[in-house]
Amino acid sequence: MSIQAYIDEHKGRFLEELVELLKIPSVSADSKFKPDMLRAATFVKDKILAAGADRAEIFATEGHPVVYGEKIVDPDAPTVLVYGHYDVQPADPYELWDSPPFDPVIKNERIYARGACDDKGQFYMHVKAFEAMVATKNLPCNVKFMIEGEEEIGSDHLGEFVRKHKDLLKADTILISDTSIIANDVPSIEVGLRGLTYVEVEVTGANRDLHSGVYGGGVANPINVLCRMIASLKDENGHITIPGFYDQVTELTTAERSALNDAPFDLDAYQQDLGIDEVEGEKGYTTIERTSVRPTLDVNGIWGGYTGEGAKTVLPAKAYAKISMRLVPNQTDKEIEAKFKKHFESIAPKSVKVVVKPHHGGLPYVTPTDSLEYKAASMAMEASFGKVPIPTRGGGSIPIVALFEEVLGLKSVLMGFGLDIDALHSPNESYGLFNFYKGIETIPNFFRYYAELRKEA
Amino acid sequence: MSIQAYIDEHKGRFLEELVELLKIPSVSADSKFKPDMLRAATFVKDKILAAGADRAEIFATEGHPVVYGEKIVDPDAPTVLVYGHYDVQPADPYELWDSPPFDPVIKNERIYARGACDDKGQFYMHVKAFEAMVATKNLPCNVKFMIEGEEEIGSDHLGEFVRKHKDLLKADTILISDTSIIANDVPSIEVGLRGLTYVEVEVTGANRDLHSGVYGGGVANPINVLCRMIASLKDENGHITIPGFYDQVTELTTAERSALNDAPFDLDAYQQDLGIDEVEGEKGYTTIERTSVRPTLDVNGIWGGYTGEGAKTVLPAKAYAKISMRLVPNQTDKEIEAKFKKHFESIAPKSVKVVVKPHHGGLPYVTPTDSLEYKAASMAMEASFGKVPIPTRGGGSIPIVALFEEVLGLKSVLMGFGLDIDALHSPNESYGLFNFYKGIETIPNFFRYYAELRKEA
Repeated sequence: MSIQAYIDEHKGRFLEELVELLKIPSVSADSKFKPDMLRAATFVKDKILAAGADRAEIFATEGHPVVYGEKIVDPDAPTVLVYGHYDVQPADPYELWDSPPFDPVIKNERIYARGACDDKGQFYMHVKAFEAMVATKNLPCNVKFMIEGEEEIGSDHLGEFVRKHKDLLKADTILISDTSIIANDVPSIEVGLRGLTYVEVEVTGANRDLHSGVYGGGVANPINVLCRMIASLKDENGHITIPGFYDQVTELTTAERSALNDAPFDLDAYQQDLGIDEVEGEKGYTTIERTSVRPTLDVNGIWGGYTGEGAKTVLPAKAYAKISMRLVPNQTDKEIEAKFKKHFESIAPKSVKVVVKPHHGGLPYVTPTDSLEYKAASMAMEASFGKVPIPTRGGGSIPIVALFEEVLGLKSVLMGFGLDIDALHSPNESYGLFNFYKGIETIPNFFRYYAELRKEA
Repeated sequence: MSIQAYIDEHKGRFLEELVELLKIPSVSADSKFKPDMLRAATFVKDKILAAGADRAEIFATEGHPVVYGEKIVDPDAPTVLVYGHYDVQPADPYELWDSPPFDPVIKNERIYARGACDDKGQFYMHVKAFEAMVATKNLPCNVKFMIEGEEEIGSDHLGEFVRKHKDLLKADTILISDTSIIANDVPSIEVGLRGLTYVEVEVTGANRDLHSGVYGGGVANPINVLCRMIASLKDENGHITIPGFYDQVTELTTAERSALNDAPFDLDAYQQDLGIDEVEGEKGYTTIERTSVRPTLDVNGIWGGYTGEGAKTVLPAKAYAKISMRLVPNQTDKEIEAKFKKHFESIAPKSVKVVVKPHHGGLPYVTPTDSLEYKAASMAMEASFGKVPIPTRGGGSIPIVALFEEVLGLKSVLMGFGLDIDALHSPNESYGLFNFYKGIETIPNFFRYYAELRKEA
């Protein structure tokens, strides 16, 4: 029986299994979901075993557990390490969801749920593609699965896990589906990812909340000060003002820039989709460049003072913000974190106290388009989409891929199947059924081409 | 029996009754406390009757009810209208209270609870002073009580109440205890109050929360934009940049300024009390001036994006802030509200949408120091404190006093007994027992001197 025939015959069940997985609220950022994290890990382990793995187990870490599974078909065959994550972003604000985030709904050929695309829907394609290859005796490579539970909070403990299990994770390449394509008729592969530095800042004024009438005008208001400090982090051209922030950033060549901007992109459609009248970003760069090859600084959350119903004339003691910076090749998260901290502390007026608390970070990453794994992925997509995929630079971050290269000496290939409309990290996240099945169909092609290219090499 | 003897004999019960009143969480800003608002109003009505009023009743309004009570001793005697409010500020953040805000605790001669000073502790002094005057047959004036339940949210419906009941409220002056003295050995009377304009702003970027990696750098982040806009509302000298904001502000004369700055004030002690290394405010003015005769702009609350545990790389759709401005004589809340709205909307970049929602406001107010009521209050404090009180300009706002003058044609005298350390609107609000009893002792003096001065006049 052909792989395609097997997929066609079992596709209904594949989707039902994904629905089950999506029902588990495995939110890694919020400790109250810890039991659900373990439930999700157990579900993944069981499915990998059921799909035909020789072994699969749950490895505890200092944080959330890692699921590992493998099938060794031939010690001499190349080994593909599949990486993915079973944790998801927090689902709030819940009130903006049309249906409950952990009660998956299928409508107009899409499945709606937190994690539908990022990354449950995408890594689960690998489990099912693996099942199809095993069942039809079409598995040309050894397979190892490493599905973690802390990607959305910075993979804090995966580095330690990888270092500790170097031998177990021995492989020839890493295959990851956690990115997007340009459109269902315009396949693409992300060859670049931005890095990330994420910090939380706390600004303290007086030692207690004050009456804004009695003290207003006489003492620093930490919210006003925080706003002032945040505003000063960019100049009127949207350029980040942190000293040395751009030191390691290399400008693209004119050729690279035009290639990048050749990718199909409709600004009007983009603005319409987002419901905005105008885009905003660093002067002198296109939207594609701003969201892929340029570093950023965004406030992800801010809070302080009275935020309840009605009015309270309080001059608060504290104000807080979560601030993240996306990094581009050659910038390192530690270097930018240090520069941010030094600068932010230096611009704090004497009238307040400032604390900068680093969250997680990650290095940027680039996949060489002349690598075997990239070629295999390109051929695999061409075979299933009928078009050669376009290499693109993504704006997102998968901090761990840089670590894989450092510790395991392996390149990763980012063969993702999501779309911009999937609303990752947003209410009403969804994933197209077309994309789910197209992924399951494309993955075996990758294994076949990769095995062939390795032989030739 | 003398008034003082009566007070000494019943002071224990006076305090117990205040404790009962403080146990009622009458938070006007939060609708979930509506039943407690009615409980508090009923308690006040009953106590006014018990103290010897001819009548007392609860008047319903579109908002929270007003308690009215009166005792007419002689149609030809002057009538004093006592104003106060039984509503309190929200008590959050609860975790910063050393004891529950609505479970009063008495320690080191102070009573700790939300509303202890503002204004339950202060208006209740009038109920008890009234009881003492009636019981000892020493009531030289007619008394009318008007205790409202919406002062902390702008007295939205008291204006209508006052207009509707002009005849009922007919009086010769208004006596209010809702302000502070400089120190227990430095009595003072506030002769000026700042006005207030309070607005809520909403900044909207995209039509949904976005992934900060995929869209970061390419579209406006409403939090960054809000911070930019708020920061731009003041220049490097702490001067407010809203066009025309200072148009109506009259600079004090050199004489007025030095008189104002003659009031005892220790900057080191002030900074130490607040736990700050440096004060911050409008350049060219002293802390006393900044907090009394100069207008202000403070953010009272700000929120947007992810504010939970851990990190979420979201580019939020919306950001919000509550912003209030304290006004000085000649500025009007409506005028400043309009100027703020116009300016704030004008500085919004095309990449976002901005909504400015007015909350409540109030006009500034000044009590002439040559008025009968001021003289009576000054003599009353001199008699009980042994020192002539210093006339001061307060930074807070009691919007309703300007309305009293407009509608009833009456001046108000602000004979308050609080202290800066009372932590109004803050966690661990408290009121000194010395101040509570000193107020009860001083109020009858006011009635006596006011009646005498009226006869002479």
